[in-house]
Amino acid sequence: MQNISEINNLIKLISKLPGLGPKSAKRIILKLINNRQELLKPLAETLRDTYKNVSRCLNCGSLKSNTLDCDNCESKTKKLNKICVVENIADQWAIESSSIFQGYFHILGGNISNSNSQRKEDLLLDSLIERVKKNNIEEVILATSATVEGQTTAFYIQDSLKNINIKISKLAQGLPIGGEIESLDDGTLISAFKNRKGLNSE
Amino acid sequence: MQNISEINNLIKLISKLPGLGPKSAKRIILKLINNRQELLKPLAETLRDTYKNVSRCLNCGSLKSNTLDCDNCESKTKKLNKICVVENIADQWAIESSSIFQGYFHILGGNISNSNSQRKEDLLLDSLIERVKKNNIEEVILATSATVEGQTTAFYIQDSLKNINIKISKLAQGLPIGGEIESLDDGTLISAFKNRKGLNSE
Repeated sequence: MQNISEINNLIKLISKLPGLGPKSAKRIILKLINNRQELLKPLAETLRDTYKNVSRCLNCGSLKSNTLDCDNCESKTKKLNKICVVENIADQWAIESSSIFQGYFHILGGNISNSNSQRKEDLLLDSLIERVKKNNIEEVILATSATVEGQTTAFYIQDSLKNINIKISKLAQGLPIGGEIESLDDGTLISAFKNRKGLNSE
Repeated sequence: MQNISEINNLIKLISKLPGLGPKSAKRIILKLINNRQELLKPLAETLRDTYKNVSRCLNCGSLKSNTLDCDNCESKTKKLNKICVVENIADQWAIESSSIFQGYFHILGGNISNSNSQRKEDLLLDSLIERVKKNNIEEVILATSATVEGQTTAFYIQDSLKNINIKISKLAQGLPIGGEIESLDDGTLISAFKNRKGLNSE
């Protein structure tokens, strides 16, 4: 490899991104260098703007542009009465792209875990209660992961909200669409059996 | 998706990079945002520096940092007497990482092709002849692709150099290492048969 510090640094940084290694980093760098005006320059500028302008909202936990009010915290156009609680922004984006949910999101920023250093104090839990009260929320949907940590977190939130008179629900567990029985883990099968739905009952 | 212009622009730009689509772009963006100081900031700065400082050397066609002399054009530490001619910088990097070649590189910037708009005038051909003369080169190795365009380019360069008294060679054609006979194309098989090596001859 040629010894150009900018290129060596780029390879190191891009290799740290998910799904990319030194080889794909080199391909990406050559593509950028061969498209200086159309790709390299705007990407450098947009990353700089993202660093300067985009941050997590301290109220709802979602991303916001510093130049604008957080459009995730409150809807200006319509009255919403549900909050969906997720662990991180990737979860919010996945649920948004499915279009199944119309309402506010609340992003905890992780889950309650014994194994790593994440503590309850690091999660946006207090502001959830405030948002529920302030926006006259009728239902809190707990969409944390179907893991021990995610379910512990859901249980903790359920407990925190017990004195407020609202509906609290959590996502159904069972077979994923397209899931083949033989390839599913025991936990999913047990959950699917326990939550089986009667087809002939009223 | 949330409507943050910086994020939308990043998704569009990153999706244009080789091997990446909107889904991997989102994963990359979340990784960047969750590592503002360690990844997002240095990546933005390094891309800006690359845009400002790194360009193609007009003499040898390789990448150079504007702040330094091109270290690909001439070796300060040792006397080299071979030039390897390749189509693009990715080819140079691949040959460099194999460590098989010790000498100068000359990067044409493409090949001679009838099908696309690339013309001979766009390739770094004249400076190759100058470099051969100036550096007392003894051998020019033509490492263009084993395609019609690559071989046309090699033939054209061979013709341009015919009045200079140097050795000109091109890379061997045959079975790639690990290549299974049944999965090879006709052209490779024909070439491997034509160039077969006697094992018992002197």
